[in-house]
Amino acid sequence: MKYVALIASLVSGAAMAGEPIQPIEAVKVDNPAKVELGKQLFFEPRLSKSGFLSCNSCHNLSLGGVDILPTSIGHNWQEGPINAPTVLNSRYMLAQFWDGRAADLQEQAAGPIANPKEMALKHELALDVLRSIPGYRASFEGVYGDDNIDLERVTDAIARFEETLVTPDSRFDLWLKGDKEAITAEEKQGYALFKSNGCAACHNGPAAGGTMYQKMGLMQPFETTNPAQGRVDVTGKEHDRMVFKVPTLRNIELTYPYFHDGSTYDLKQAVITMQRVQLGRELSDGDAEKITAFLKTLTGKQPAITLPLLPPSVAATPEPAPFAD
Amino acid sequence: MKYVALIASLVSGAAMAGEPIQPIEAVKVDNPAKVELGKQLFFEPRLSKSGFLSCNSCHNLSLGGVDILPTSIGHNWQEGPINAPTVLNSRYMLAQFWDGRAADLQEQAAGPIANPKEMALKHELALDVLRSIPGYRASFEGVYGDDNIDLERVTDAIARFEETLVTPDSRFDLWLKGDKEAITAEEKQGYALFKSNGCAACHNGPAAGGTMYQKMGLMQPFETTNPAQGRVDVTGKEHDRMVFKVPTLRNIELTYPYFHDGSTYDLKQAVITMQRVQLGRELSDGDAEKITAFLKTLTGKQPAITLPLLPPSVAATPEPAPFAD
Repeated sequence: MKYVALIASLVSGAAMAGEPIQPIEAVKVDNPAKVELGKQLFFEPRLSKSGFLSCNSCHNLSLGGVDILPTSIGHNWQEGPINAPTVLNSRYMLAQFWDGRAADLQEQAAGPIANPKEMALKHELALDVLRSIPGYRASFEGVYGDDNIDLERVTDAIARFEETLVTPDSRFDLWLKGDKEAITAEEKQGYALFKSNGCAACHNGPAAGGTMYQKMGLMQPFETTNPAQGRVDVTGKEHDRMVFKVPTLRNIELTYPYFHDGSTYDLKQAVITMQRVQLGRELSDGDAEKITAFLKTLTGKQPAITLPLLPPSVAATPEPAPFAD
Repeated sequence: MKYVALIASLVSGAAMAGEPIQPIEAVKVDNPAKVELGKQLFFEPRLSKSGFLSCNSCHNLSLGGVDILPTSIGHNWQEGPINAPTVLNSRYMLAQFWDGRAADLQEQAAGPIANPKEMALKHELALDVLRSIPGYRASFEGVYGDDNIDLERVTDAIARFEETLVTPDSRFDLWLKGDKEAITAEEKQGYALFKSNGCAACHNGPAAGGTMYQKMGLMQPFETTNPAQGRVDVTGKEHDRMVFKVPTLRNIELTYPYFHDGSTYDLKQAVITMQRVQLGRELSDGDAEKITAFLKTLTGKQPAITLPLLPPSVAATPEPAPFAD
């Protein structure tokens, strides 16, 4: 079935023509040693002041690349300011963070390490930790030609690993590529509604999001107690108040709770809310069900991650400070 | 070389005869579906009140099965009472926890989930979370014949997974099995000292530990601010005060910091301290170096873990309470 569909797709390209969402493509890894090093650093709790938190703590690859919490837990159990976005398919985002304040994944990766509300470890100390560990010195030498460990290399390796975290072969993508039976009639109806109701105006591109910024509460105010103000904090322009990066809908079934404030765990409710505040329309329960069914077809093949083994500290390694403020 | 050694070992068995430490053997998995389910549960943060902590948080399989902290971080960043022991080779322990209060891994697994200082989730609520998740219901049905999810099954699956976490093929084990060049002359001298100085009186068996309880501070008091009193809390007998399970030395290079209070990250210093307080002897620096070198030969092949994908919650799943006390 799949091969027939593939051939049909190659011959006609018809299924994809004019569709607002394009398939996620598998990633070819050019530099496996760098990606492996980046994976170690992504899982490395010694990049936090406590020695307990890693990138994977909040972008958990067992859980769709998120922490399934409304807002994240940081150093000393501090409550984070905003819902952790998924790292999956983040390579497709026009910029990183909800407010787009990092241009790319490499710039993003430096942020949480030193953020006092997140991993809370000064960059220079994080680098000293890595430099003290013989296994890391050897890996950096293998990847970069010498054993110098600096922030640029650390974030480069993390970013190159994160770029591999894509989720191809969702049922929707199989359908896009021509397998007409990959999604059900209800799901197709949901997709039609998704387009005709205007959702695809913002949720488009391979990630069904991440291609633009948009005001949260375009037609009606979005009620929230979350203090985030969005891109105004980056641009200083008043028209950017409550303007956020449009999040990806890929793997949305996994990346609850929803919205920048993580205010609901209920995907259908999230669809109804979005239709109301962004598009000024009340969805019927039946239509909300159909759109929700469509959204669940966007769950792709998750990255197969072999848990990295982290090279041991030595006596000279700076010790973590889990119970320091 | 390895094959020659293996044959030599099969023919003579000489290297192992009379040695206090026996090789760790690879584990044959009888029920891979149950082990896979147990792995999911081991990595499952929804077994904690916060939705953030899993077994792997403190028994991190990227880090030798420990959290590399003096004592662990629990719900709401509470400071744990004792150093987290490694889960690696824990099947070889005569009982679980430092004070042996759990008879086996299944009994142990139930403890941290409900401990208010650890994962802090009442068992009944943990079970309700799992029962609400269609993917778990299907997995329990596949493994146990019906989709009933109770504490016995949950802890059974976790324990069966943990039993697979062994670390065979350390250099020391290759030497034990007859490969005379698997460890260096210095490491052999360290092993000879380990035996002649009395370390092996307690650190014996396949795990080089875990076969008995022993008083911490047998010859000289062990100075610590940690309030743990050891097995007296289990048996009520005064002679069990400061008596703890002898920890494994397998993978000791990875499982810093050392002792039940996690008071040192320096393995050589730990060796010197143990020699002093347990055996009443001051080690020379050279002998401490040799014993330390030997101990590093006990690092085995770490389990190859494919990160589990956890089945998604649904709208009816009880939500985590990360910022509740």
